[in-house]
Amino acid sequence: MTKRVYNFSPGPSMLPLVVLEAAQRDLVALPDAGMSILEISHRSKWFDQILQETEANLRQLLQIPNNYHVLFLQGGATTQFSMLAMNLLRGKNQPADYIVTGTWGTKAVKEAQREGEVRVIWNGKADNYNRVPQNSELNVDSQAAYIHFTSNETIQGVEFPTEPETGNIPLVCDMSSDFLSRPININRYGLIYAGAQKNAGPAGATVVIIRDDLMQAAPNDLHTMLDYRIHAAEKSCYNTPPVFSIYLIGLVTRWLLNDIGGLEAMATLNREKANLLYDAIDQSNGFYKGHARPESRSMMNVTFTLPNADLEKQLIKEAEARGLYELKGHRSVGGLRASIYNAMPRDGLVALRDFMLEFQARQA
Amino acid sequence: MTKRVYNFSPGPSMLPLVVLEAAQRDLVALPDAGMSILEISHRSKWFDQILQETEANLRQLLQIPNNYHVLFLQGGATTQFSMLAMNLLRGKNQPADYIVTGTWGTKAVKEAQREGEVRVIWNGKADNYNRVPQNSELNVDSQAAYIHFTSNETIQGVEFPTEPETGNIPLVCDMSSDFLSRPININRYGLIYAGAQKNAGPAGATVVIIRDDLMQAAPNDLHTMLDYRIHAAEKSCYNTPPVFSIYLIGLVTRWLLNDIGGLEAMATLNREKANLLYDAIDQSNGFYKGHARPESRSMMNVTFTLPNADLEKQLIKEAEARGLYELKGHRSVGGLRASIYNAMPRDGLVALRDFMLEFQARQA
Repeated sequence: MTKRVYNFSPGPSMLPLVVLEAAQRDLVALPDAGMSILEISHRSKWFDQILQETEANLRQLLQIPNNYHVLFLQGGATTQFSMLAMNLLRGKNQPADYIVTGTWGTKAVKEAQREGEVRVIWNGKADNYNRVPQNSELNVDSQAAYIHFTSNETIQGVEFPTEPETGNIPLVCDMSSDFLSRPININRYGLIYAGAQKNAGPAGATVVIIRDDLMQAAPNDLHTMLDYRIHAAEKSCYNTPPVFSIYLIGLVTRWLLNDIGGLEAMATLNREKANLLYDAIDQSNGFYKGHARPESRSMMNVTFTLPNADLEKQLIKEAEARGLYELKGHRSVGGLRASIYNAMPRDGLVALRDFMLEFQARQA
Repeated sequence: MTKRVYNFSPGPSMLPLVVLEAAQRDLVALPDAGMSILEISHRSKWFDQILQETEANLRQLLQIPNNYHVLFLQGGATTQFSMLAMNLLRGKNQPADYIVTGTWGTKAVKEAQREGEVRVIWNGKADNYNRVPQNSELNVDSQAAYIHFTSNETIQGVEFPTEPETGNIPLVCDMSSDFLSRPININRYGLIYAGAQKNAGPAGATVVIIRDDLMQAAPNDLHTMLDYRIHAAEKSCYNTPPVFSIYLIGLVTRWLLNDIGGLEAMATLNREKANLLYDAIDQSNGFYKGHARPESRSMMNVTFTLPNADLEKQLIKEAEARGLYELKGHRSVGGLRASIYNAMPRDGLVALRDFMLEFQARQA
């Protein structure tokens, strides 16, 4: 088998090796079906079973009550920026409040503005998005249809330690890059959406969790594929869903339940992994500088800079030679970014941390 | 390895075995990358190469000129019903003309009506969609923005033998179920769209081929993900595309070029395959009755009935015991449907034909 590297890409990103091996084993023919998962009908009993198990696993992991629908859609979180506003804001006499803590939240605002009144109630742009707001900084409109936030900003590496406090107004959350990385209080949410390609599976599926009463209040002029009600009524099979991506999400959720032991255990492991890097940063006497303020640090994307761009390039190059890939930061933040989602093994973090210490020592 | 069956499903459907085997071999780690295709970044050099090759292969197979864009989107043909009308009809002072030859065309009309004036210039409903129109039956509006048709109606098994004659008005075609099954005259088209899961790959990607001048005339109020211009400008990577599905399309196009020898050869093989069944139907003295009229018969979906529903059930059951799967017809047509896309081997058709002859002989 080809040697595998540690892939620190912001997504698509690493998947658990046991998941990849299971998918590989059955790729030409699912054991009972005599057909590949890439070939089975989405109306077949085999897919029906996969869909049911995947939804049940998600419900168990996130403790999702019955008044929430779990949908498997396509088009990524970016499509949801539009679709959620069409469904929850269009035609309403209420504004939607948006908390903007980075690049993705900014994009979400832009699409929502096409559908109704958007109030940006907090924006971290002046500080180049290096923190999330305190609850006391949020001036929520008590009439807001919803409050939108991005639980983890992948590019900036800024994460809400817990849900913002917003009274009774339903939260709408782009959870793409920390979905399934920790437990959440689902009852605080009206809608959660997440592109699968960070923690939940491969690119090509978007998980949407939506509270029934909010969903039912959507306007009646929506295109079929942009109407959550249709997808909910048809159990994500109004048209052909992304079968293989859903199958992989099923394998990942099975791994979370059986191998990891649930989201509390996953969160503990993720904190431990992230702290290996943050400790190295904090103990580097300023050689490594974290982008996010400590209280807003992401457990998923560790963003940091070195004293100059040449050293950053050198580190990235040398890291790659050791099988530590995709460490270049996004151009809007610069420096480096280590994306360390659920499937990144602790060993990958130890290897990167050790290399960072060694690299720094050599510059002395 | 688990035994594989002949899968006559309307889609998702069979893929070439060499494609599945290649995907299986490299699933845990692409040879040069040390990462799975399910993990690589869509901004990586590996995916860049896959995307470029896949587009180049499609351009070669379909002889697509430079003034057409090739896009890889998500959401299936059903999303395109809406998106094409948003882009090509919204805000125009022109109607769009639709030719309706079955279930999918009917759905396309419904979504387009939300965006502008739709004229259904031919509808086969009265005959339960058993044929396509003659050119002389088409009363095209010379001011139409486009003329929409469904080259192959998957459910009814009705296929245009060639493009309808419509003067200079651009054709817009849902080619989902016969895309890449035969050569086409690309210059007749303004827009072609196809869900990949019949002939081109697995579920989860939609190929769109669009002429630049039509695309540029779209209105300016479109949501980002529903605007072809954005996807064209960003080479299908505005957000994370369905990486694995595109990779599979790449493998399938490689198979078409290298193993099959192009679309002329594929079309010849497809006609030969389909005729094995149609000949059995025509020579059955009315035991098997084809749904489509001979001149509109689909080379992809062979729809037929037996003298009664009990015999149909019995045939389907016995067929399955012989590894001939998914032959049940859609409820709107009844009877049986054998979907025999590119990847269904000739041997599968011979096996089905032989079984049909034997089954009929036993009823005598």
